[in-house]
Amino acid sequence: MNETLSKEKEEQIILAARKVFARFGYSKTTMEDISVEMDMGKASLYYYFPTKENLFHAAILYEQEEFIKRMGLLLKKQKTAEEKLKAYVEERLKFFQELVNLGTLSYNPFHNKQSVSIKMYESFSEKEIDTIKSIIQEGEMNGEFMSSVPAHYPGLLVHLIHGLRLRIIKTLTGSAMDSKVYKELRNEMIMTIDLFIKAIKN
Amino acid sequence: MNETLSKEKEEQIILAARKVFARFGYSKTTMEDISVEMDMGKASLYYYFPTKENLFHAAILYEQEEFIKRMGLLLKKQKTAEEKLKAYVEERLKFFQELVNLGTLSYNPFHNKQSVSIKMYESFSEKEIDTIKSIIQEGEMNGEFMSSVPAHYPGLLVHLIHGLRLRIIKTLTGSAMDSKVYKELRNEMIMTIDLFIKAIKN
Repeated sequence: MNETLSKEKEEQIILAARKVFARFGYSKTTMEDISVEMDMGKASLYYYFPTKENLFHAAILYEQEEFIKRMGLLLKKQKTAEEKLKAYVEERLKFFQELVNLGTLSYNPFHNKQSVSIKMYESFSEKEIDTIKSIIQEGEMNGEFMSSVPAHYPGLLVHLIHGLRLRIIKTLTGSAMDSKVYKELRNEMIMTIDLFIKAIKN
Repeated sequence: MNETLSKEKEEQIILAARKVFARFGYSKTTMEDISVEMDMGKASLYYYFPTKENLFHAAILYEQEEFIKRMGLLLKKQKTAEEKLKAYVEERLKFFQELVNLGTLSYNPFHNKQSVSIKMYESFSEKEIDTIKSIIQEGEMNGEFMSSVPAHYPGLLVHLIHGLRLRIIKTLTGSAMDSKVYKELRNEMIMTIDLFIKAIKN
């Protein structure tokens, strides 16, 4: 099989898998379900993705990359560093909602500390911190923010926002997030970014 | 049995149970272990506390009450509202460490959304928010903080600090917290309260 074709096929499988994961959640989805959705033999499916977990990781990675691209475009549209920080938090929340819809709540990668998904999460988290860093630098340069925002603040912001998500996850009973919980989380995130901006503003 | 004697006995059992929970963690402790520690028949122990979970709740409630008393005294010693907020966060972290030592990490109350421990946690969390509220009011009155700190900030602070703890819990492999992780958490909490104070300072 030609490599380009193979890449294309992989992406088709990931897109089909996303649909199925979103329908049943991670734990209830089977490779059978995905092969049916793809109209593809199970043997071929296993050729591309040896396990369900494997395919789930690929789907999450795909979502992460999509988010980063979308984020880049969105940030370009905002004029001030303050607007960029706010847009970031808002978009990050939507991304969280998408992951929840993919069934991530029924998937607990923390049973294995060396697992691929933890590495994926950490590398994504580093990218988030880098994005926040560059927005803050922009605000330092253009005089919106104080000239020397503490170096640990970008990491702190990402962790605070992450912590708020974890609190909410703990209170969820099912695999979905109802609109009341979503609003609560959104309010807290908006308050957090406002607090953060107040603290670093010139 | 006379009611005062009974109360006294209960407290003795709770103190013995704390030791045993701290030694073995929640999941590995048995009522047998606690009756041995108390030098008391199992039947009598069950008379006071019908289940291990029951006794564990009593132990946590006891710790919470101790923390609240200790906190009250500690806050009186601080002069400014800023110092009080900082002292609060520092003491709250120590309390978390104590609960971890009691084996709370191996106890997951969230299997039952109506459980006593969730109600206990929520009522404790409300007390925390009230404490922060009254410190902030003091700071508003004496001119340390801006005159109208947003009404949701006390709750937000308690939730942000809680979220940081949850992040750390997720990364722990065993039942204990090593000193590196403790330091990391402490740093993040200190940065958070500094950020918070910066945002509301006059």
